[in-house]
Amino acid sequence: MKQEKHRQICNLFNTKFPIIQGGMVWVSGAKLAAACSNAGVLGLIGAGSMKPELLEQHIIKAKSLTQKPFGVNVPLLYKDAEKQIQVALDHGINIFFTSAGSPKKFTPWLKREGKTVVHVTSTPELAIKCQDAGVDAVVAEGFEAGGHNGRDEITTMALIPQVVDKLSIPVIAAGGIGDGRGIAAALALGANGVQIGSRFAATKESSAHQKFKEAIVQANFNSTLLSMKNLVPVRLLKNHFYEQVKELEDRCASKEELQNLLGKGRAKKGMLEGDLEEGELEIGQISGLINSILSVQECVDELIKQYDQSVAQIS
Amino acid sequence: MKQEKHRQICNLFNTKFPIIQGGMVWVSGAKLAAACSNAGVLGLIGAGSMKPELLEQHIIKAKSLTQKPFGVNVPLLYKDAEKQIQVALDHGINIFFTSAGSPKKFTPWLKREGKTVVHVTSTPELAIKCQDAGVDAVVAEGFEAGGHNGRDEITTMALIPQVVDKLSIPVIAAGGIGDGRGIAAALALGANGVQIGSRFAATKESSAHQKFKEAIVQANFNSTLLSMKNLVPVRLLKNHFYEQVKELEDRCASKEELQNLLGKGRAKKGMLEGDLEEGELEIGQISGLINSILSVQECVDELIKQYDQSVAQIS
Repeated sequence: MKQEKHRQICNLFNTKFPIIQGGMVWVSGAKLAAACSNAGVLGLIGAGSMKPELLEQHIIKAKSLTQKPFGVNVPLLYKDAEKQIQVALDHGINIFFTSAGSPKKFTPWLKREGKTVVHVTSTPELAIKCQDAGVDAVVAEGFEAGGHNGRDEITTMALIPQVVDKLSIPVIAAGGIGDGRGIAAALALGANGVQIGSRFAATKESSAHQKFKEAIVQANFNSTLLSMKNLVPVRLLKNHFYEQVKELEDRCASKEELQNLLGKGRAKKGMLEGDLEEGELEIGQISGLINSILSVQECVDELIKQYDQSVAQIS
Repeated sequence: MKQEKHRQICNLFNTKFPIIQGGMVWVSGAKLAAACSNAGVLGLIGAGSMKPELLEQHIIKAKSLTQKPFGVNVPLLYKDAEKQIQVALDHGINIFFTSAGSPKKFTPWLKREGKTVVHVTSTPELAIKCQDAGVDAVVAEGFEAGGHNGRDEITTMALIPQVVDKLSIPVIAAGGIGDGRGIAAALALGANGVQIGSRFAATKESSAHQKFKEAIVQANFNSTLLSMKNLVPVRLLKNHFYEQVKELEDRCASKEELQNLLGKGRAKKGMLEGDLEEGELEIGQISGLINSILSVQECVDELIKQYDQSVAQIS
């Protein structure tokens, strides 16, 4: 990762490695983001699950835990998005990852403020719109990624080269990257850097409930599926909640029935509170490859070592 | 591709490159297989769409077109599978790729005959069963691949490292590999070689109808979807036939209704006869990346050149 194109990402975020810790609801708070930034990757506080006041507390705490830059991830589908951005601006955050909405919505504002802006996309088409909206880079996220996902089901292998060919700004690959081999593969596809979620969810510093971390470690190759396609598609661990969703989907139940089953607070219940049966457990397909709960520093050391081995094997 | 682990594939098939041309119904006949073998990759005659007598003609023709080894791909879900294998044995074929069935079914027979056997799998679990059944290698094929596909929707990025970690025999990656960057990525994930389908379907030597080849070139990032999950999941180009399937699926129609719509000969109608609206057009998601109809030799030259460039960019 010493090539010019990978240094672009390091220079953009002032990190040692072209690696971003993905913003994850209920999982990536101050502790995880700061530990990642301290380990040489860009840490992101996942604002999606936080009221603006809570986000403020996490930003203040993260600043006390690291001198390195970190950013916030703001999913635009929640009503507090604008307030979350304002809080982050008030506290001098310089790096904004936005997702699940239009890149036109807040990019002009953030660029006027002189900030670095990255938007998450699941198609080459939206990637072009991101570039046109003035973002500094895009995250191109494949079908295998955990949590909210696109409707076109484009996998990382298919997505990255098609995005890279269409953009002049840097491309960060996400989805299916759980070890250093995945990093090498994503960069071979032409990405400038990578964003990693699930692997960092199963670290000591993540805010995920211990039971959820253990469930990630236990997960097998077929433990996740992209579900709730009639609402907002989301990849989650199969559990009793998932079975209930599937039962509704298998009989073509209405959106209202699905919405009623989903209710409120399912993700919090599962990911933060550790209810493995009734909670919504958002995680990537690559969880099948994750077999340990490590500290962030151990995790990053391992990723870099595996990356070097992988590159040596194809050079 | 000069590493020991990639040479394993070259040695297994006596090819210059650790690349296999995927067997594809209605697309990979004698002309394509022979052209691929002549260009240094392993050509496969796709027996799935052939009566035993037609397969015999293709084997005889391919032998007249190349001195290099080629193999046959036999999907085990068709009733003629055993007869197809017998015909290939009678004509001295030494390389058998089997798929869509149990690896235990014919592997013992083929190994007694001293043949090289490879089975196609979409999960690490089945990959272990293939190894236990005595195959020489497996093709691990991701969700993004065209045609018949697994039910667990595991993408190539997630699948390959999980299969590699569990097997001692060589692993050939398939699904989402449309250019040399994809080859480099697959090998970075730990594969010993790659199988490529869609890219070879859009070559001058493929038996696909010219209109189908042009449809592959025209395909966009979102032109395919995994469909007919209630029968046998198959990835195909979205067209009027697909819309009819979707209409049935959206209202939870019975398997019988789907089967009636599918009828007989849909794939032949689309892929061989060029009916782009009513035919079943099996192709991979990576068709969005394919923008030209090349000769096989041009195609292979380009793959190798792109591979070298990709590796140089991460070394």
